[in-house]
Amino acid sequence: MNYPKGTAIKERPHNKSDINYANRGMNLEHDLNITNEYYRDQDIAHIYKKPTPIKIGKVNYDTMKITEAFFESPSTTDYNGIYQGKYIDFEAKETNIKTSFPIKNIHAHQLKHMEAIVRHKGICFLIVRFNKQNETYLLFAKDLLDFIKDTKKSSIPHEYFVQKGYLIEEKYHPRVDYLKIIKEFGGAK
Amino acid sequence: MNYPKGTAIKERPHNKSDINYANRGMNLEHDLNITNEYYRDQDIAHIYKKPTPIKIGKVNYDTMKITEAFFESPSTTDYNGIYQGKYIDFEAKETNIKTSFPIKNIHAHQLKHMEAIVRHKGICFLIVRFNKQNETYLLFAKDLLDFIKDTKKSSIPHEYFVQKGYLIEEKYHPRVDYLKIIKEFGGAK
Repeated sequence: MNYPKGTAIKERPHNKSDINYANRGMNLEHDLNITNEYYRDQDIAHIYKKPTPIKIGKVNYDTMKITEAFFESPSTTDYNGIYQGKYIDFEAKETNIKTSFPIKNIHAHQLKHMEAIVRHKGICFLIVRFNKQNETYLLFAKDLLDFIKDTKKSSIPHEYFVQKGYLIEEKYHPRVDYLKIIKEFGGAK
Repeated sequence: MNYPKGTAIKERPHNKSDINYANRGMNLEHDLNITNEYYRDQDIAHIYKKPTPIKIGKVNYDTMKITEAFFESPSTTDYNGIYQGKYIDFEAKETNIKTSFPIKNIHAHQLKHMEAIVRHKGICFLIVRFNKQNETYLLFAKDLLDFIKDTKKSSIPHEYFVQKGYLIEEKYHPRVDYLKIIKEFGGAK
């Protein structure tokens, strides 16, 4: 059973602090970091965002300051860790497009990595936030890969997330409670 | 059953290519990277070294070159991934000291992280290479944490690795076959 579209958002009281909170929702990475911090503090799960891969060029070894470096593209997803003894692995993306999510936002080697994790029985998924609607969905990697395999489209319609994904309830603490969905539906997929 | 001390090394033929190979053993990180690459290519396991955490100061957004950045200390271990559906997590260190491994080589928050992984039923361990002997040991996190809990010493004697750890056989491919030990002994600890 998926959450009805938009329910979690509509149910929140529309007071001032709530409006500020909604604005902060623009930064999914930040929300996930504090969610993962909450999970760790409560000893529910130990999931981290991997550091951004950087190729170091020059270092001043007296001060240990890096004076030249470049961003590299990641070979895996951004987040991984352990929950209830299981391996958890996911990628998180925001989009400002209302009607769809561009597939090119996920690198080819990230998709290959997700395939491997599914094959090895890890719990793997994509979290996408549609900024315009302020809706955050969890889509299991299997459903993501199924869509990509069967399509010639360059993007995944918002409707596909509504149908196949799970709307993540946004709360104060934990902010983006994605493990609630894993707990209920994660074993089945 | 632990491997008898030094067996794997003594058994290797002492020809010229072997000597070069032993010298290359000085870089554990490199050896682990090619080992993990091998595991991935063979679809045995999907384990990666996390990128070094770096705090980015200044970026030239025209060229995307980072012109100021600093090293940060890691909050977790360096390596994690999935093997036979299980969460794998480890730290790897080299030492040039022949008789012991200094505990300070592992940060306090890394030890705390290892405790959490053990508690959550992940497979967690430390790999230490004694460069002088060219011996590489796998020590399960439980045994590492037990030693630290019960001691006032600032380092772990080499002898403790011989007794409680597992000597990792060094081969051409995979170079440092630590999963062989996990396969045989990983479930029991």
